Amino acid sequence: MINITFPDGAERQYEKGISALNIAEQISQGLARKVLAADINGEVCDATRGINNDAKIKFLTWDDDNAKSTFWHSSAHLMAEAVEGMFPGVKFWVGPPLEKGFYYDIDMGDNVIGEEDLRKLEVKMAELAKQNNTYQRKEISKPDAIKYFEEKGDEYKLDLLSGLHDGEITFYTQGNFTDLCRGPHIPSTGFIKGIKLTNVSGAYWKGDEKNKMLTRIYGVTFPTQKELDKYLFLLEEAKKRDHRKLGKELGIYTMDDDIGQGLILWMPKGTVIIEELEKLAKETELAAGYKRVVTPHIAKESLYLTSGHLPYYKDSMYPPMELDGVNYYLKAMNCPHHHKIFAAEQHSYKDLPLRLAEYGTCYRYEQSGELFGLMRVRCLHMNDAHIYCTREQFAQEFRAVNDMYQKYFKIFGIEKYVMRLSLHDPKKLGQKYVDEPELWIETEEMVRKVMTEANIPFVEVHDEAAFYGPKIDVQIYSTIGKEFTLATNQVDFAQGRSFKLEFTNQNNEAETPLIIHRAPLGTHERFIGFLLEHYAGKFPLWLAPVQVKILPISDKFTGYAKNVLNKFKIADIRVEIDERSEKIGKKIRDTELMKVPYMIVIGEKEVNEEKISVRRQGKGDMGSKNLDEFIEILKEEVKSKKEAV
Amino acid sequence: MINITFPDGAERQYEKGISALNIAEQISQGLARKVLAADINGEVCDATRGINNDAKIKFLTWDDDNAKSTFWHSSAHLMAEAVEGMFPGVKFWVGPPLEKGFYYDIDMGDNVIGEEDLRKLEVKMAELAKQNNTYQRKEISKPDAIKYFEEKGDEYKLDLLSGLHDGEITFYTQGNFTDLCRGPHIPSTGFIKGIKLTNVSGAYWKGDEKNKMLTRIYGVTFPTQKELDKYLFLLEEAKKRDHRKLGKELGIYTMDDDIGQGLILWMPKGTVIIEELEKLAKETELAAGYKRVVTPHIAKESLYLTSGHLPYYKDSMYPPMELDGVNYYLKAMNCPHHHKIFAAEQHSYKDLPLRLAEYGTCYRYEQSGELFGLMRVRCLHMNDAHIYCTREQFAQEFRAVNDMYQKYFKIFGIEKYVMRLSLHDPKKLGQKYVDEPELWIETEEMVRKVMTEANIPFVEVHDEAAFYGPKIDVQIYSTIGKEFTLATNQVDFAQGRSFKLEFTNQNNEAETPLIIHRAPLGTHERFIGFLLEHYAGKFPLWLAPVQVKILPISDKFTGYAKNVLNKFKIADIRVEIDERSEKIGKKIRDTELMKVPYMIVIGEKEVNEEKISVRRQGKGDMGSKNLDEFIEILKEEVKSKKEAV
Repeated sequence: MINITFPDGAERQYEKGISALNIAEQISQGLARKVLAADINGEVCDATRGINNDAKIKFLTWDDDNAKSTFWHSSAHLMAEAVEGMFPGVKFWVGPPLEKGFYYDIDMGDNVIGEEDLRKLEVKMAELAKQNNTYQRKEISKPDAIKYFEEKGDEYKLDLLSGLHDGEITFYTQGNFTDLCRGPHIPSTGFIKGIKLTNVSGAYWKGDEKNKMLTRIYGVTFPTQKELDKYLFLLEEAKKRDHRKLGKELGIYTMDDDIGQGLILWMPKGTVIIEELEKLAKETELAAGYKRVVTPHIAKESLYLTSGHLPYYKDSMYPPMELDGVNYYLKAMNCPHHHKIFAAEQHSYKDLPLRLAEYGTCYRYEQSGELFGLMRVRCLHMNDAHIYCTREQFAQEFRAVNDMYQKYFKIFGIEKYVMRLSLHDPKKLGQKYVDEPELWIETEEMVRKVMTEANIPFVEVHDEAAFYGPKIDVQIYSTIGKEFTLATNQVDFAQGRSFKLEFTNQNNEAETPLIIHRAPLGTHERFIGFLLEHYAGKFPLWLAPVQVKILPISDKFTGYAKNVLNKFKIADIRVEIDERSEKIGKKIRDTELMKVPYMIVIGEKEVNEEKISVRRQGKGDMGSKNLDEFIEILKEEVKSKKEAV
Repeated sequence: MINITFPDGAERQYEKGISALNIAEQISQGLARKVLAADINGEVCDATRGINNDAKIKFLTWDDDNAKSTFWHSSAHLMAEAVEGMFPGVKFWVGPPLEKGFYYDIDMGDNVIGEEDLRKLEVKMAELAKQNNTYQRKEISKPDAIKYFEEKGDEYKLDLLSGLHDGEITFYTQGNFTDLCRGPHIPSTGFIKGIKLTNVSGAYWKGDEKNKMLTRIYGVTFPTQKELDKYLFLLEEAKKRDHRKLGKELGIYTMDDDIGQGLILWMPKGTVIIEELEKLAKETELAAGYKRVVTPHIAKESLYLTSGHLPYYKDSMYPPMELDGVNYYLKAMNCPHHHKIFAAEQHSYKDLPLRLAEYGTCYRYEQSGELFGLMRVRCLHMNDAHIYCTREQFAQEFRAVNDMYQKYFKIFGIEKYVMRLSLHDPKKLGQKYVDEPELWIETEEMVRKVMTEANIPFVEVHDEAAFYGPKIDVQIYSTIGKEFTLATNQVDFAQGRSFKLEFTNQNNEAETPLIIHRAPLGTHERFIGFLLEHYAGKFPLWLAPVQVKILPISDKFTGYAKNVLNKFKIADIRVEIDERSEKIGKKIRDTELMKVPYMIVIGEKEVNEEKISVRRQGKGDMGSKNLDEFIEILKEEVKSKKEAV
């Protein structure tokens, strides 16, 4: 008998050689139907594999990332079986799982795979899945394995085998397909129910363009058809919401080869959003006792040597400009500039906390291959601020910053978010992190305590701190569940010392302030990118670049329409008029596409009755309204930042 | 007899050899008392010099710049006479007039001149002036001149003589002093009535530090004591208003060696002013149909090659940064970036004029010796916009821009300004100016016509246009009459072509728009520098960094004072409280020094009566007020941008 320990600490005895799947079956058939793999003593294994010693086990079901990987890896084998069935003689290279789905690289010989073939392969895969064939593991000697693939004439698997040692080689077989594979796999093909082959492309063997081009088939599978449907819907939705697509269609931003990669030109409509966000930030920060500053975008090398950016952050900075024999750098962060403003005046503990805020523009060098729409750029407008405080004030200030995050989440309808406490790695002190071992431990504990006391859920992550102290990274999720890294909230015990920042404490001694770096709204680039996807371009009224569009049915009503236009303008509503000689249907469709929240249709009836007809974007006709009353409704909707209708 | 033509075209006949002064005496003694010099056929001459041929003449009096120069040059001679009288044996180098006043460089031998000596010299000069000695001109041969100064042992004048030719040498004598001088001079010393020697310093002979150090005495004189008094008052006032002094005292801005020269760090109080100015600009531009954009601070070399900045403006740009093999430059102007936004979308004539505005930050390389406070900096936040329009729209758009300037002048109480139309130099086409001779003439004429039709006074200046077209430079004058260059309003016919900017005109053809570059509020740096001096730091309420300061008489009243503070805060009034344990007199004095518009004194009486006591900066006690009513008054004062009290 062997001792099996479960995650909750419970222990039970089983016959030697029993599998995790057998144990699950003994617990309940319902559980067994869900077990895709098992974690045995920390290693992910086939659930069907016999256990011969005492072990800790955990059943891995669909909600576990390792189970998903196993599932998709097994799906790659299933696809390979289908491909081999339809195209005998093809040869397989590797078929790994991905973050979402899997692929297999295949030498298709003379066969060309088209869209139609993918559909046929899906059908074939579904048939094979229904057979519920088990994935059978077999340990095999290297000579036998070589013999097998030599007989098959498969130079790819032979190439893989050449890198493996005897004793570590296994085959997996399901149905008629056998593959060289270290596993693990799901118990049987019957688990795979929702099947979609998403794409086919070329891929050089071993990624080397001197080698033969193989065919890479991508797919994704799920334990139910329903989950696949949901996934495909969200995929489609995410495509529609792609901020690069919407950014162009809605005239939010553009880029230009002569300006440079990763450098955003904000068009008038995007700039409206920027200004509204800055207004919100300024109001919020004013109410929270922040003071604003404005600093240049460049500084001398000496500043960044003092701050530590040059030794620790040089690769992410633009190269220097040499002027009068001095190197100037574009600022990658605003903090050193703010420190200089702190240092420009004398401070007593009574002046603290001093909170200096700036929507500062920073420049960071990202590899051109890493640039991506608004998400990875080289010029960032950051909702930045630095709080200089005493140790006694730290907890309250750090909590207030977290409160500000939560306030913003509410305004923008961000319901899901994760706070990650990023810690240092003691092994990298002096390289990646400033060499102050005690201060690291102390400040990490301070942050942990604040987060715990404030009851904010967080996870801890090793070796991801800033070079000057621990930080909270905030991940947020859009309406359709897409993850975005928003911002950070950092503690800094190092720069205050480097810059010799001081205040006079209650004992009349010079003391170095703690510094909190924070940027709840992140950068305009990333946050507006997020908002485009979060709202699918349908901005709430207060953020909408054009809030109202006036659509006269014909030229006859232009006079009245322009009077209406002016009334909106006087009320500070962002309004446009569509004076084209188009039919009203087309005007409405075009305005819908531009996602303008309100449309005002003006025709004979409206002129006669001295009213307006209102349509809400995506919701249709709202009927006839009195203009003045409607303007009041809109003002309220703008002010409340919530949809009125 | 000779024919004399006067500026009004009148002609009269006079005896040959008559002087301008004689003619003036014949016209009136009153005129003669004012004539300092004469313009004879375009040359500035002694008014006492005989005229032997027909001539056009103009009497030069104190309001003429050439008369002032002559006056100050004669004053330098008068000072030299006084110095020689008091310190026999000193030797003179040169004594030119300045923009305001004059100096003389003197080898004082072993004598050292102190502040007391200056006062004695002033007295001596006044005595000599009262003698009303005439300035007598004498043509002299080079040998005689050399002989004169050899006998005097004056190596300095001998050095000057060595560079002169026989026949062009003149001596001027007044009283006991004779100088080598080409003139002209005023008729006699009696004209000089207000005398002030302002400074004494060292100056190397010929400006070469290897030479002997001479003594330079500076002075300024006027035709009346009253004018001198006024000048000295304004000088004192200008010192008090120096924006560098006020900028530091009021916590408006700072600079730092580690950031770099000419790079301003705007402190919280300066940033308040920036934000108010931007708010005003945004509201004004929104009402005038501008759209806002945001663009990066850098771009590739290729952009500035297209725009023409690199060939025409390279010396004023920062050096490049090389990234991925491409040179990037900090933008010296926003225009190329705005052109790219124009180019990002298709335009029809119906979309024009398109007015793109941005408070864009530009970087310009100024020689470190030319940097000066906020007036000459390297980082400029510019009230920039570019108007893309058709030829038909040009006049109206250009006029609207001029109207906007005037609107701002009114808001800021700028009563005196000069508009200068800067034109190209046909000889510099292809070097300093784009090589489009016809377009230069056409656009210069367009601007001239708009200015004339709009009845805006302007002067024309040769060879000062932008490289892409003619411009209007605006000079403004502060309350005490100090001149500032504010901004420009430029026409650009060149960049539209270079960037291939196009719109579809009414005939459905592609056409290049005209571009107006304009920046009525100039740069934050220069404009806030101007405002500091214009207002002497006493900003009107809407601009004041702190609008209200609450001064509790003792700790006992802090509770009530804080309630008052909160009421102001809720009303969006920028308010601070002085909680120091200082006497109320000191609190008031300190607040006065910081030029906070309103002080609220809180003591026993105020608490008992539930009122506040109000003091206005510079005006003293305004008595007891009801808080709510007073807040309404302040709100109105802020809104109207005019002083309420």
